Amino acid sequence: MGDLREDLSNIDCGLPAALEATGERWSFLILRAAFNGLHHFEEFQSTLGIARNILANRLGRLVDHGILAREPMPKDRRKIEYRLTEKGAALLPAMLALRQWGETWETGVPSTPVLVDKRDGQPIRKIDIQAHDGRLLQLEDLSWKHTHEITPLEVPKLHIVA
Amino acid sequence: MGDLREDLSNIDCGLPAALEATGERWSFLILRAAFNGLHHFEEFQSTLGIARNILANRLGRLVDHGILAREPMPKDRRKIEYRLTEKGAALLPAMLALRQWGETWETGVPSTPVLVDKRDGQPIRKIDIQAHDGRLLQLEDLSWKHTHEITPLEVPKLHIVA
Repeated sequence: MGDLREDLSNIDCGLPAALEATGERWSFLILRAAFNGLHHFEEFQSTLGIARNILANRLGRLVDHGILAREPMPKDRRKIEYRLTEKGAALLPAMLALRQWGETWETGVPSTPVLVDKRDGQPIRKIDIQAHDGRLLQLEDLSWKHTHEITPLEVPKLHIVA
Repeated sequence: MGDLREDLSNIDCGLPAALEATGERWSFLILRAAFNGLHHFEEFQSTLGIARNILANRLGRLVDHGILAREPMPKDRRKIEYRLTEKGAALLPAMLALRQWGETWETGVPSTPVLVDKRDGQPIRKIDIQAHDGRLLQLEDLSWKHTHEITPLEVPKLHIVA
């Protein structure tokens, strides 16, 4: 990746920040359940088989980080629901990339069921690293640059053909 | 995402498998350092400021899972290097997706330096969920299907124009 490195002690990097908010096995499994439409403490508890004190702790942390929102149920306002916020829903690409990696390198089989595009029923594409124009990039195609070294792309001019 | 759900107690899903192998804050930070070209115990230790016993434990686990390989240094075979395997390098999309999420939702600033495509020096694209034909997909565009319900895509025929 060239000579330039990240400052690995830098707290402002997105990765440690993301891990601080989510970075623990149970938190990801609770999120997976939330993406599957689970909303209630009891549902999470029975489906995941997680100890109640750990579940309460992890739900609290996900709420503190604004990833899940605690809301009273519309039908019975004494009951609480946990719902993915916009910030929580934005974790889906990272979770799917981890899942696909696990399928390829750990379980060796595609997880079932398969995630498909509603419009045509076809499986989603493998989550990859792409250049701004969509070319696939591998580790060896990447390097680091400081922000001030990056030349903004010229926007192609439109030629009016009369 | 429709009515079909994953079986959340299923151990064969790629996500729990991926988290089992990597799912802990220090493991990700060690991997980030490995992607930045660090190879030696002492480098990891001094750069990350991690306790030696935790570092030894996490390096051991990453080696056990085939994510890092322990190799004697070519120049001094008494010294050991840790190098990303192909399986380890394949974690990059997941790590970058988490990093980008952290930049957007946690730190609020792009991590520096920026990861660019070597060929044109432009920043990589945001890691997203795409349909097989490259269309961007959001959470509401997705649903689950069993493998046997998926109709394979017809490969478009090439018309030979003589």
